[in-house]
Amino acid sequence: MTRRLLLATLGAVPLALSATSPIDASRLRSRLEELSLCGRVAGGSFADGVSRVAFSDADIAGRALVMRWMRKAGLDPKIDAAGNIFGRRAGSDSKLEPVLFGSHTDSVPNGGNFDGDLGTLSAIEVIEALNAQRIVTRRPLEIVDWTNEEGVAYNNGLFGSRAVAGLLDPGEMDAVWQGVSQKDALKKIGGDAGRIDSAKRSAGWFHAYFELHIEQGGNLDREKIQIGVVEGIVAIDRYEVEFRGFANHAGTTPMADRQDALLAASELTIAVNEIVRGEPGRQVGTIGHMEVIPNAPNVVPGMVKMTVELRDLSAEKILRLGGAVETRAREIAAKTRTALEFRKGSHHGSALADPKLQTLIEDSSAKLGFATKRLPSGAGHDAQSMARMGQMAMIFVPSVNGISHSPKELTRWEDCANGAAVLLEAVRRAAS
Amino acid sequence: MTRRLLLATLGAVPLALSATSPIDASRLRSRLEELSLCGRVAGGSFADGVSRVAFSDADIAGRALVMRWMRKAGLDPKIDAAGNIFGRRAGSDSKLEPVLFGSHTDSVPNGGNFDGDLGTLSAIEVIEALNAQRIVTRRPLEIVDWTNEEGVAYNNGLFGSRAVAGLLDPGEMDAVWQGVSQKDALKKIGGDAGRIDSAKRSAGWFHAYFELHIEQGGNLDREKIQIGVVEGIVAIDRYEVEFRGFANHAGTTPMADRQDALLAASELTIAVNEIVRGEPGRQVGTIGHMEVIPNAPNVVPGMVKMTVELRDLSAEKILRLGGAVETRAREIAAKTRTALEFRKGSHHGSALADPKLQTLIEDSSAKLGFATKRLPSGAGHDAQSMARMGQMAMIFVPSVNGISHSPKELTRWEDCANGAAVLLEAVRRAAS
Repeated sequence: MTRRLLLATLGAVPLALSATSPIDASRLRSRLEELSLCGRVAGGSFADGVSRVAFSDADIAGRALVMRWMRKAGLDPKIDAAGNIFGRRAGSDSKLEPVLFGSHTDSVPNGGNFDGDLGTLSAIEVIEALNAQRIVTRRPLEIVDWTNEEGVAYNNGLFGSRAVAGLLDPGEMDAVWQGVSQKDALKKIGGDAGRIDSAKRSAGWFHAYFELHIEQGGNLDREKIQIGVVEGIVAIDRYEVEFRGFANHAGTTPMADRQDALLAASELTIAVNEIVRGEPGRQVGTIGHMEVIPNAPNVVPGMVKMTVELRDLSAEKILRLGGAVETRAREIAAKTRTALEFRKGSHHGSALADPKLQTLIEDSSAKLGFATKRLPSGAGHDAQSMARMGQMAMIFVPSVNGISHSPKELTRWEDCANGAAVLLEAVRRAAS
Repeated sequence: MTRRLLLATLGAVPLALSATSPIDASRLRSRLEELSLCGRVAGGSFADGVSRVAFSDADIAGRALVMRWMRKAGLDPKIDAAGNIFGRRAGSDSKLEPVLFGSHTDSVPNGGNFDGDLGTLSAIEVIEALNAQRIVTRRPLEIVDWTNEEGVAYNNGLFGSRAVAGLLDPGEMDAVWQGVSQKDALKKIGGDAGRIDSAKRSAGWFHAYFELHIEQGGNLDREKIQIGVVEGIVAIDRYEVEFRGFANHAGTTPMADRQDALLAASELTIAVNEIVRGEPGRQVGTIGHMEVIPNAPNVVPGMVKMTVELRDLSAEKILRLGGAVETRAREIAAKTRTALEFRKGSHHGSALADPKLQTLIEDSSAKLGFATKRLPSGAGHDAQSMARMGQMAMIFVPSVNGISHSPKELTRWEDCANGAAVLLEAVRRAAS
């Protein structure tokens, strides 16, 4: 569908507008749809999702649209050395730290049209709404479109926000992905690897950070709650597990003589599920990756490599669960006569949302007539980098059936507008 | 090691010779070692195993050696249209059907030096021993080196024996593997795809078929028994199983909401083990192949494809076990809220060894002072094609630790000689 046709058909679809909010839900929707053209599969529709991987031509086109809309909203977008796009709106007291809000516009391959996009375009809508109402906040406002949140490129996400928080890994600028260096990739989007340190800011440089985002889980949708108030972003422990048995002929090796690595791995898969579900709480445990060697129908598996990933707001809890998983893995290895290697691959600490900002979001939602629910974010977000430098909070809106990172990712237009309205109210209050 | 050096060092190693047999154990060993040079890794030793995939240059070199040794034994080797090498020794009554015996000399990649080689070179030793003793059997003798037993090339084994038994699949001659057609591959080894039907023989064309082979399992080695008498080659049922759940974000999808295909597959893996071991007998069940989709540490697995393979001498038993596995799979799918596809991929019937020939092998072994044990062959062999045309029997010798299809495959020289001696005695009796 051409852009002209898209905009022409748009008028025919009735939109559920929030009568109490100055957010222009129709414009928010039309911009989400227009942004979706950048990275859409040829001949596809909005429902076919988007592939707008960071640093790609689609990403560059999407960022140009964002900057055009920022200018329309009266902002003067600036790109920092890490490629982040910032736009500042003056407050009545220029000496105060700004209220910062935004999200990202890069996507995973075959991703959806709401992850990141909603928070970024809603930030622009907040500025537009304040402009329309001729409101000048006391604090300055700063909106942001972060670089490479998804981390598909260079396999290392939250790039832009980590650069600002001084959390880049040593050597990260030397990385090469699909034949292009991180340095050259940054140049493509207006960044500058040579001055990457200039992107770094000091702790406390903002008064509060807000990020509106889709939930990417099914809690809000299932419970018909309009607004999620994020308690924090979960800690993640990832373990690399290897069972080594003995690969042997499936026809000639009696059952009693086998050292079947896949049997061991299967027992651990079930054990992880039991351990994680064995106590109350919202912790999750996943075995998402499993490699069977040699993986032939007629060979008893000699080796299995797998990952065990545990997530919870409490780093202590997943550490304890990881210990329980390791104990079970050792029992299983003994029972199946396999050798076990069990090592921690990575640990990411949790990032807690500020309690006062959570209350502020709840109050803002209540004023607009929306039900709220506090919940953790199981996924990572740029907000976790900002949590290292100041207070942050996140606003979630429902994902239909909890689907994300998929063309089937969907947040109803009404929920998009609701989220933007809550963001506007929260920003207004925090900046007053 | 050069061939000259190999033969030079050979004399220094003491060999355990069977005092009661006319088999030349030393020559058998030296020929196994010389054959091992065809397909040996550069700079490697006998212990590094062999890669002599059918139709490869190594296979061609190995077959040339076999034909040279056949000629040395007074035979005039002929290659049929399927590439099988036959050598005939006249009997005193030329009107009688021959006693047929042999094996194959192709290997799997990184295979061992005994699988197939022992039976083929022992067949030549039997002829040599009869020559040395100036024995003329009543029945003619025919020895054979079958084409492409392993089926690595063209993913379809027992090629030569199936061609003789008229068991080739339609279209098999049109297959292409590694860019080479089956037709051209056959030409390389002296076969002729255009006349492939001429390789086919009529039922009853031989009086008895014997095949000496390594056990490839650990029963004989563990029980210190010299000779295995094969009761038959097991039937094999292979099922293709697919669990389809829903791939979703490992961080944002609560445990209770997951439709985890890997959890289902793990439960089935354990169930197959329980079902197969749940009743007495020598049946085996294997899940050797498992593919997890999308197989990312942070995504709940949306789909798993796996194979379930069941083997036993009784086709009825594995059919019943397969039914039990399917029932459990359906229960698991319901419990895990996954969709199940469960279909039979292939069925190979069992091939029973002739009871009188089994007794003949036992009597021959007893005469030579060897302990015997009856056991099924869990692996497929060319003997199963011959079972479709007449009486067959197989002689097994111990595989150290039951290892096969591996450079670690090992049968002690003494056991090699013992097997050849039993083959000689059995052939002599059957041909008298």
